[in-house]
Parts: sequence; C-alpha cells; structure tokens
Amino acid sequence: MNMISNFEEFISIARQKGKKRIVIAAAEDEPVLKAIKTGIESELIIPILVGNSLKINEISNNIGLSLSDIEIIHEENPAKAAVIAVQCIIEGKADILMKGLVATAPLLKAVLNKESGIKKSALLSHLAFFQSPYYHKILGITDAAMNITPSLEDKVNILRNAIGIFHKIGIELPKIAILCPLETVNEKIDSTMHAAVISTMNKRGQIDGCLIDGPLALDNAISKEAALHKGIKSDVSGDVDLLLAHDLNSGNALYKALIFLGGAKTAAVVVGAKVPIVLTSRADSEDSKLHSIALANILT
Amino acid sequence: MNMISNFEEFISIARQKGKKRIVIAAAEDEPVLKAIKTGIESELIIPILVGNSLKINEISNNIGLSLSDIEIIHEENPAKAAVIAVQCIIEGKADILMKGLVATAPLLKAVLNKESGIKKSALLSHLAFFQSPYYHKILGITDAAMNITPSLEDKVNILRNAIGIFHKIGIELPKIAILCPLETVNEKIDSTMHAAVISTMNKRGQIDGCLIDGPLALDNAISKEAALHKGIKSDVSGDVDLLLAHDLNSGNALYKALIFLGGAKTAAVVVGAKVPIVLTSRADSEDSKLHSIALANILT
Repeated sequence: MNMISNFEEFISIARQKGKKRIVIAAAEDEPVLKAIKTGIESELIIPILVGNSLKINEISNNIGLSLSDIEIIHEENPAKAAVIAVQCIIEGKADILMKGLVATAPLLKAVLNKESGIKKSALLSHLAFFQSPYYHKILGITDAAMNITPSLEDKVNILRNAIGIFHKIGIELPKIAILCPLETVNEKIDSTMHAAVISTMNKRGQIDGCLIDGPLALDNAISKEAALHKGIKSDVSGDVDLLLAHDLNSGNALYKALIFLGGAKTAAVVVGAKVPIVLTSRADSEDSKLHSIALANILT
Repeated sequence: MNMISNFEEFISIARQKGKKRIVIAAAEDEPVLKAIKTGIESELIIPILVGNSLKINEISNNIGLSLSDIEIIHEENPAKAAVIAVQCIIEGKADILMKGLVATAPLLKAVLNKESGIKKSALLSHLAFFQSPYYHKILGITDAAMNITPSLEDKVNILRNAIGIFHKIGIELPKIAILCPLETVNEKIDSTMHAAVISTMNKRGQIDGCLIDGPLALDNAISKEAALHKGIKSDVSGDVDLLLAHDLNSGNALYKALIFLGGAKTAAVVVGAKVPIVLTSRADSEDSKLHSIALANILT
C-alpha cells in the first residue's frame, strides 16, 4: 500500500484488526465517554475506565453508555488516575492509553516516570493526520503539540517516531517534506539549515524507510505545480505524506489552520511510548476522537 | 465600517478612489503583465513599466496588452530597474511600487537605500489578507514573508504597520490576536511571553487604534465556540481581523496553508515604505495579483 485516502480506511483497517483494550485516565468527561461509546459501537475497543466512578456513572447514564460490561477503577484524583492507567499498560491489561479529564502535564509525568513509566523512544512526539478537502490523501504533520523548540537531534527522533507509525499503517516509504518558509538554505533561518542536514542524512541512510526532501515551503511540498513554477525538482513535492514542522509555533498554527480554516478532519496520537497515547483536546470533534481511537487501534 | 467580507469590496472601494499610478520594477514578466492588463481593464491603475522594453513588447503582444498609452523606461538590468522604479516614486511619478522579474533582495535594497530609498516606518513588513470559505470576513496575517525572527520591538512595529493599513481600508478598531500555540503564558515559549506583553501595551495605550488579545492559539482566535470550550474570555475571539504570527516559520506556514490547503484567496502588500509595495510571487494566482493591486490602490 502506498496511500490512505480517508479516515474511513482507518476505521475499516482497525475493524479488521479486531477490538483493542483502551485505558482512560480520568474518564469522567462527557466528550471522552461519548467517543468511548462510539468506539464500542464501532467494535474498535474494550475500555477500562479509571476515574471518579460516581461521575462516570452519571455521565454514562446521560449519554446512554451501558457500563455493565466495562471495568471501572475508582480514583478521584486525576493525577493518580493517570498513574493507575499507566500501571494497567505495564501489567498488560490495556493496549492503548487515552487522556480523559486530566491535564496533559500529569499524564505525561506518569508516562515518562523512569521507574513506573512507559517511555520507549528517545522522546515523545505528537503526530496528527489530516483528511483535507484540498489534498488527495491523508497528510501527517509532526509535531504540533508537544516539543516546543526541537533541536536537530530532536527532529530526527520526531521523524523516526513518525516513520515507524507510517510503516505500521502500511505506508512503506513515506514521502516527507521538512517544512520551511522557503526552499533555499539561508543561514539566518534555522529551519532551512536543519532541513538541508536532515535531507542529507536521509540520502546517506542515517534516516531510512522514507524519502525526505527539504527545505521546502508548504506550497512546494503540497503542490507539484507550485514547485515546477519555481523550478524546484523534488521527489516528494506534490505527494507528501508527512510535514515536519520547525517548532511548536509553526506546527500548531498549521494544525489548527487545517481544522479551523481548512475544513480538514484530524486524527492524532502521541508516539514514543510502549503503546499509542490518544490525547485529544476538548475542542476536538466527536469524529476526530473516533478517528484517533481507530488510528491507535491500528498501531497496537 | 467594521468589516470587509470579500475582495470584491476591495475592488469596488478601489474603483471609487479612481485610477492610481503604479510603477513596475523589471516588468518583463508574463504573469505580472497579465495582472497589469487586468488592472487597466478594471480601471484601477495607470502603469509605468521599467525594464527590458524588447521583452516587454514581446510579452505584451502575446497577451494582448496594448502599450500605446503606457510609459516604458528601458533598463535591462533588473536591479537597476528597481532603482529607477523607486526613483519614480520619489519624483512623484507613481503612487504604488510593484515587483516584476527582479529578486526581492535587490528590490528591497533600492527601497531601503538611506539616500535614494523610500523607507518610512521603523521596518518594512508583509501584510496578507485572506478571503476564506471558513471565515466570515477578510482576515489579515502578518508577517508571512519578510521578518525572520522579529524581536518584541519588531513585532510592535509590524503591528503598527498593519494597524495603519486597517485604518486606511476603513476598519477603525481592528481586533488582533497574538498567535501562539496555546492560550496561557509559558516562559519556555517566547511567543506567549511576547503576546502577554503586547496585550498589556495595548491596554495601557502604548499600541492604540486596535483591540489586542493574546496569547491565543489559532482555534481560540478564530472560533468563539472553541474559546468558550476552553473557558477563555476574550474580546477578539471569533471575530479577529488580524493574526500576528510569531515568526517567519509560523507565518509562512499559515499563509500557505490557507491558500493551498484552505481554499482561500489572498491579497498582500509590503508596508512601511512611503508607498504600498506589491510583491506577489510567481506562484500567486491572477486573482491574487489583481486583489493585491486593488488593495494597494486603496492604500494610496
């Protein structure tokens, strides 16, 4: 396979793989429980709910989620709920970790704990996929939510995390653009220096399993026509699977532009732990949460 | 007036103001001459073409642009053509400067020259307007093309340039969001520190003629609903006229995302010189060039 054209494919691949066990840290959150309900109905997940059982019961009643076959672990303190959820992963009781009504910081603290955590790669990073009405296939962007100002080494690790995910979803040689404001190297613009280095590392086999080009501005990454206009020859231009953003400012702006000013749907996971982490935000749509759960299902 | 809903309004306002004189530096470029032709047909401009007259004649013949009433100043060297075009502005022969087939660097060199240049403000900055199918009015973004890593002081100057433009197009109190990856201040994320400072400067009247809020992430800037979801109270949220990007990486990614992954139309000018500068790129559509010319017309 060399492309996935929409999120329905995510859901159908996930269904073929069968139900996965997902543990939710601080599950007492209506949008999260709604997503869990849809995930169950779509036969994607078997949940374990860690959190305030009273509130979980109340919300579940309101939204029509039957708790009869669902394991609930009572813990009122959200940070402690996160620790318990991570413990479920370590004990092999669950395949996916999902954030509920707990802040990102305490959840990541539990994940990254050197003794009781589940960190696996050099760093954790965020990988978002988009289904855009203006692009012919699923487009990935990393990192739009976690790493503030990644160094060159961090960027390589962020890429390695993402490349592993592409391989898992069946895209053997993802085409990657290192996103910059322009397509030439400029010593004053860090992103272009990093892009040149990373492209060369790919050519020399230091980063493999993918095809990388950069520096590329977004237009030249996305549109073959725009690249040709500027006389840019690139093996990835116009058919990019993944954009590496320079930093959190640019990644986050791009991520939110696609959703709020681009009509795109999204699915996202945090990569780099022993299991995929679903870390959706309150503002994400129901759809987006379901797609993220389907994605996490595929990745286990 | 408190909003402009689409670029047709730009064109009709420009028409009311009458024709303006535009000088093109290195006009021997087909896309630029096509835009000039449309600008003449739309009764927006009277051009002066500086550049290689042989090539200008040839292209004009091909695209059906009649040169009979147009002043042409022959100069084969593009950098020298830029100097001559700037000279036309100084001599009062033209109201708008437009970039033709000359690189941005030599054009700006001519503009910024201390003796023979036309710099007016503390710095030059790029201001782009967007007509997006996902937003209810024209949205500005600055700076997506010129300033690489603006300091706090630079950002204030970039804002002052943009605020002046909003006043000129008739929006008396533009609502401005200082764009960040999140809506709280984080000492590790420069953009949020700058945003807090700039917002306070606005409250204290150090930056006036506008309503500024920040830090705001793009979702909370653009969508009142997203802001309410997160419990953010903001006077600008959901009705923002202008987004200040943190740097060139984020501004440029956002600018190109709106065009290439958001179905938006754009018009842009460089601000901070004695006259508006139209600095479109080869990849810009015909429409975009015409809208930029209309915008520049309004600003003179």
